Order: sequence, then structure tokens, then C-alpha cells
Amino acid sequence: MSDLSPMDLYEKLTAQGDTVRSLKAQKSPKDYKAGCPPVDGEMVLDNGAAPEDGDDQVDPWNVSSSSAKGVDYDKLIVRFGSSKIDQELVDRIARVTGKTPHCFLRRGIFFSHRDMHQILDAFEKQKSFYLYTGRGPSSEAMHVGHLIPFIFTKWLQDVFDVPLVIQMTDDEKYLWKDLSLDECHRYAVENAKDIIACGFDVNKTFIFSDLDYMGASPAFYRNVVKVQKHVTFNQVKGIFGFTDSDCIGKISFPAIQAAPSFSSSFPQIFGDRTDVQCLIPCAIDQDPYFRMTRDVAPRIGYPKPALLHSTFFPALQGAQTKMSASDANSTIFLTDTPKQIKNKINKHAFSGGKDTIEEHRKFGGNPDVDVSFMYLTFFMEDDERLEKIRQDYSGGALLTGELKKCLIETLQPMIAAHQERRKLVTEEVVRQFMTPRKLHFN
Amino acid sequence: MSDLSPMDLYEKLTAQGDTVRSLKAQKSPKDYKAGCPPVDGEMVLDNGAAPEDGDDQVDPWNVSSSSAKGVDYDKLIVRFGSSKIDQELVDRIARVTGKTPHCFLRRGIFFSHRDMHQILDAFEKQKSFYLYTGRGPSSEAMHVGHLIPFIFTKWLQDVFDVPLVIQMTDDEKYLWKDLSLDECHRYAVENAKDIIACGFDVNKTFIFSDLDYMGASPAFYRNVVKVQKHVTFNQVKGIFGFTDSDCIGKISFPAIQAAPSFSSSFPQIFGDRTDVQCLIPCAIDQDPYFRMTRDVAPRIGYPKPALLHSTFFPALQGAQTKMSASDANSTIFLTDTPKQIKNKINKHAFSGGKDTIEEHRKFGGNPDVDVSFMYLTFFMEDDERLEKIRQDYSGGALLTGELKKCLIETLQPMIAAHQERRKLVTEEVVRQFMTPRKLHFN
Repeated sequence: MSDLSPMDLYEKLTAQGDTVRSLKAQKSPKDYKAGCPPVDGEMVLDNGAAPEDGDDQVDPWNVSSSSAKGVDYDKLIVRFGSSKIDQELVDRIARVTGKTPHCFLRRGIFFSHRDMHQILDAFEKQKSFYLYTGRGPSSEAMHVGHLIPFIFTKWLQDVFDVPLVIQMTDDEKYLWKDLSLDECHRYAVENAKDIIACGFDVNKTFIFSDLDYMGASPAFYRNVVKVQKHVTFNQVKGIFGFTDSDCIGKISFPAIQAAPSFSSSFPQIFGDRTDVQCLIPCAIDQDPYFRMTRDVAPRIGYPKPALLHSTFFPALQGAQTKMSASDANSTIFLTDTPKQIKNKINKHAFSGGKDTIEEHRKFGGNPDVDVSFMYLTFFMEDDERLEKIRQDYSGGALLTGELKKCLIETLQPMIAAHQERRKLVTEEVVRQFMTPRKLHFN
Repeated sequence: MSDLSPMDLYEKLTAQGDTVRSLKAQKSPKDYKAGCPPVDGEMVLDNGAAPEDGDDQVDPWNVSSSSAKGVDYDKLIVRFGSSKIDQELVDRIARVTGKTPHCFLRRGIFFSHRDMHQILDAFEKQKSFYLYTGRGPSSEAMHVGHLIPFIFTKWLQDVFDVPLVIQMTDDEKYLWKDLSLDECHRYAVENAKDIIACGFDVNKTFIFSDLDYMGASPAFYRNVVKVQKHVTFNQVKGIFGFTDSDCIGKISFPAIQAAPSFSSSFPQIFGDRTDVQCLIPCAIDQDPYFRMTRDVAPRIGYPKPALLHSTFFPALQGAQTKMSASDANSTIFLTDTPKQIKNKINKHAFSGGKDTIEEHRKFGGNPDVDVSFMYLTFFMEDDERLEKIRQDYSGGALLTGELKKCLIETLQPMIAAHQERRKLVTEEVVRQFMTPRKLHFN
């Protein structure tokens, strides 16, 4: 297996069955009349199939799998009706940008997309686009897993040189959690500091709290109302599983997450242009919001947003669930000390190693279920070194303790550096990022 | 009957059964915990009873009665669980303000209330309140019936010397009608001109379009979200009859009509005061919104708004329905010429007179079903003259044509004067009224 390239290696993780292609081929184009209210039951969503018993659960509020390898992402691509990020697309991104693809692309961490080729087609014709991602600020504490979309979004911003909007859904957290509006808003500002510490360009990045921006932009509210007119309760019930007992705020919230997908929500950035396409990097659990958005877009005269989907960042205890800030033991926080990082990994990180050193030396460990190895695929930049670790661990030359040490030595400086950068993010810097203003946009 | 005073006369129209008092006495006080999300099914609304077969239909979108006398307002008071505006309350308003009660109060046109005594108790202790009313701008054309709440609100503003907010629900009209956002917003501004022409004091009046103000006031959006968190779909289904096929915009809209009932929605007027009570003069069909609002208020830590309810302004063809801008023949528009007014009344106003002059002279007409007479009860200031007309018409001395002439001579100068005042409402004047700003407030 030593002649496999890193790409071949990670290709394995996202291997795409013929089923996907045949399903995609069956999809027929839909014609909508712009400005028409929805006819109930007419909305044909992009998800190819309903979940079946035994399928992984993946929605904006729950992610779980029965497999230690985690969610079956190939099945998810089929279920959601998205497209795989294959080698051809990765190569094309490299060609168009003239940059080495980010390791999240090389390693299949961003594994699925919608309409990314369309974004690249337009980009090659000098037609620009903008990036949109977001965060639900449910607590002050962000963890390493939360950084994934932001690390990747920063890379996209750098290589494509495009503006970026980041939505902090403090209103959503107020609606879903037992928190006050002021708490949610404070978390939005605190989380924004961690996001800014990822290195975004202030001249090309607008971060907004919904609670602030809704009250500061008639254009944003207009798009929210447009979406709200074109989606029925039946539809959000089908997509999000809402019930009659849910509050009306939850029921109408999806429109608020949809609205930033349209450039006219940001006249301070895009002037009166309603046609600038949006590219949304996000974890795959957010896709239901954007399936809805893509369905509504042509009916209100806007382009559909394109998407890049990431896998989940596994909990320390194993890939059956994603890392969650509400379980401290499953989580490495961005505020953890080097010692805390070391202890948590040594104590909690699920190991794919064998029970005894003798057995491990003889049969080798299983990197496919080993959380420390999974984390290294996210954060170890060096492809060759990572591949060597994989081989050594599989072959038994590398012990679990040694693998964990390797992860600890990768994470400690990375998080310390993040903490240093975050210290530099003053209230004034946050204010700059969060002020609606003109951005650098071609 | 000549020894009946005008108040006695109109008292008849709104006579209150013992049933109301006994129903009201049964109501027990409810305790809510502020900040608690709703427990489904827990919301006990203020409406005493569900409509029964044969009851008049009265909700924000439909008003109809099978009786030529119009809606049975006494029954409505029982059904909605509100309180009658009785002579004692009218006398108290006169005492507290030192002014003769408006003829809409003297004549039972504002016939029902919630918590008006509480407003007066507080006012007597120098504790002020504010007024809130509104309009759904579904077309450029307003009719005489639309003026009723505004004429009365202006009188309240004058005699109590309090600030007033007027909500133009252009977002609602976009959600319910086949209109564009721009059309609805334009109607909001055009209708504001007619409202301003009623004579409101610019130093004490803020008129806002939802589409504008939502995007200009984080405080307003915060209150919208608070209400949205505390009302379930089950509840709006019960109150407004929404179904699963309704768009999510309609489902969440009631929170937007609720929010102006709380003083913290207007920090530019009330600073950080969240305790200024609100008094809402409106037609009784808007009560469902405010029953919901009053239920939510204590759970989010705000005072319940008080209400004053008016009867409907009957269609020209008869009091079975209210005047509607969508049926030109049933309607006297504020833009009608003297000739149009004359022709519409002569041609369409339903008469309570007899078929022949001989019969009419002998048996007399019926003012209780005569639309011209009803209109005079709204617009003829002189109580004695109105009572004489009633007697002469009932007795057969006054013919239908003469009664209509009397109405025409009342309406023509009234509408001409309105048109003159509206001409003076420049774009600059509208801009002043619609700019969020400090108001004169004690």
C-alpha cells in the first residue's frame, strides 16, 4: 500500500458508488415562476431519498451513527442528492486558483458539493462570487471542531480573493435554548473573536449578529419575508421535522438562515446587484437549510447558492457522534491549556489500537476508528508524515501512546497560537468586522 | 321615545346581557413565569367561548353577519371575553379628561374594551401611557370606514396628550396578497398621507412601515423574537385558523403585530422603559392579535396592552359586511368627488324605508337597518339633530331620499376637507412622521 498517494488514500473514505451518478442523472430540471407563492406539496427537494432504518441521523440538531468509523458520507451524498468532491474537482480548483488545494480538500474532509463547477465556470469568466458561512453561538466556549468551516473558508477567501459574510444566529439560539437574548448576543460577539482569530481579512469580511443586523438592514428583512412567503409549514415540517408544538419562531427561522445566500441582503457590499452567486462552506448537517434555500431561490428571482460540505469533527470518545461543546469530556476547547489538551487526549481519545503492546505490535492498530488519527487528518499539514503515521500505526510499529503524543504535539502549538491571535482581537477589531460597510469586491 | 337621550338611544345598540358579567366573574387570574417558553396547550385565551353555528364571523380577514342590523356586538363581547364600554366608563373618561366624550364613545361605536379602567387608574396617578394603532396597506385607496380608528385615536391623543405609534403592516400585505414588496411599501407611504391628514401631532406621532422599521430597530426585532419564542403553531392555529399549507411568514406574522404593544420596541421614544402601558384603539376584528399579545405579555415581563374596540363600518349595500376597498360599489373612497359620493349613496346605500311614499308616510322607515342613517351616527356631530332625523325617519316624516340627501351633505364637505388636508401632506411631512425619533412624552 506504500504506492498509494495521500489522495488515493482519502479517496477511499469518500468513494462514490454508481448509485449516486444514476440518481443524479434521473433528476429533471425544474421550472419555477419567479414571484409565485408556493403551491403546497409542489416543492421537490434535492434530497434523493428519505432516511431508512439504520441510516445515520444527520440534521441541524442531531448527528449520530452506529459505526465507529462515523457517518457513512457516501450514503449521505445519495440521500441528500448532492455531488461528490472528486479528484477532478479538486484538480480543477487547483488549476483555477493556481494554488495547492487545502488539505481539507485533498483529504476528503470537504467531501460533497452543490454547483461548485458552476462557481468555477463563472470565476474563469471573471465573474466573481461571495462566501457565506455561519455559527450558532450557544455558549462562550468554542472547540477545535468549530474551527473546521472557518479554517477552510479563510483558505477559500485567500485563494479566490472574494468577500465573505458570516452569520451569527444568536436569534436561533435564543429560540432553541434556555438562554436570554442578551446571553445569546454576548456569545455571538465572543465567538466572533475566535472566528476573527482564524485570520480573516477585515477588508473582505462582514460578521453579523442576526439580532443586530435584522434591525440594521431593511434589505435583509425584505429577503427574509420573501423566503417566508414561499415556504409553507408543510415544507419546513418535512425538511426539519418541526411539529405543531414548536414555537412560531423556530418555524420561521429557516428563512433567516436562507436570506444571507442572496447578495441583495447586503447592499452595503453588493450595491443593487441581486445576481452575485453565493458559495456556502458548511458542515453537511446544515444542508437542509440550503436545500430549502435552493428550492426557493429561482421562485424569488435569485441564483441558487452553491455549497461545499464538510464531514463532522468526531467526539474524543469516537466518531459515532460529533464533538459537542455541551460534553466537556468529549471536547477540546479553544481555551484549553497544553496540560488539559494532553490529559483529555490521553484519557478520552478513542483508540484503534490493540489491548496489549504484544498484540498491537503483531496485528497493528486500526486508523479508521482511531480518533487521534482522525484528528491528525484534520490538522497535520504534512501529507507524507501523516501517511507514514498511518502505515506505522496500521503495521504495529507505532503504539497508541505514541500516536496520541503526536496529536498532542500538533494540537498544543496550534491552539496556543490561536489563543495568541485571539488576544489581539480587541473590542475595536470586533466592532470593525461587525459594522455593515463596503467590502473590497471586484 | 322622545324623552330618550342620545346615549340611551345608542345604549340600545350595545345592551349588555347578564351573561357577560357572569362569564367575566368566572375568569380566574393566571400566573405565568416570565421568560418561560410556552407549554403547548397551556395558553388560556381571554375569549370566553368558541363561535357557534349561526354566529357572526369576525376575524382579521372576514367579517360577516346574516342580520341586516349587522354583527351582534353583545354576543361578540361574550365570545371574545372583553368588557362593554358602559355609561359609567364613558362618564369616567369625561371626568378624567375634562372633555366631552367623542361621539364614537357616546354612540357606542367604540363599544368594547380590555383594561381601560386600569389605564385611567394609572393616568389619574400621573402615570402616562401610549397609543398604538395600525393599518394594513393593501391598496392606495382608503375609504371612509378606514378613518374610524384614526379619527378616534386622534381624539384620544388630544385629550390624553400621549404619544402614538401607527404600524403600517406592509409585510403582512405582501404575505397575504399577490403584491410585490415595493407595491406594499408604496401603499404604506400613500396610506400614511391619509392618516396624517386626520390631524395627528407630528411631535407625538411615529408612523412606521414594518419593512422599514424592522430593518431600523434591533429593539423591535428583539421583541418580535421574544413573542415568537412564546407562541406555538398550535396556538396561532387555534387563534387565527392557520393551516399546514400556510406559508411560514403568515404563521409568524402575529408576533410582528404584537411587538408594538410593548414600549421597549421604541427606545427612541421611551428610552429604556419597558413598563409604559399601551392602549390600542382598533376595530374588533383585530382583537385576536391582541388576545395573543395579552397572553404572552406577562411571560416576557411586559404589561398587557389595553384595548378599545370599535364596531365595523357597514358596506353601502348593508351591514351584513363591512365596507371593503376591493368592492368599489360598496365603498366611498377618500378620493371620491362630491358627484361620486352623491351617486353612490343614492344608488347603492341600503334603505330602511318602505317601498312607496304612501307606505313610508304611514308606517315609517327602519333606521336600524338603514345604511345612510348608520353612516350619520358615525359622522353627524350634532346629537339632537341626529335624534330628530331618527324620529322623523321612524315616524315617516322623513323620506329615504331626504335622509340620503342629509348624508350626502354631511359626507361631501367632510371628504373635501380631508382631500384639502391631504394635499398639504408633502413627502417631507411624511418623512418627518416616519422617521424614528424622540417624541414628546411625559
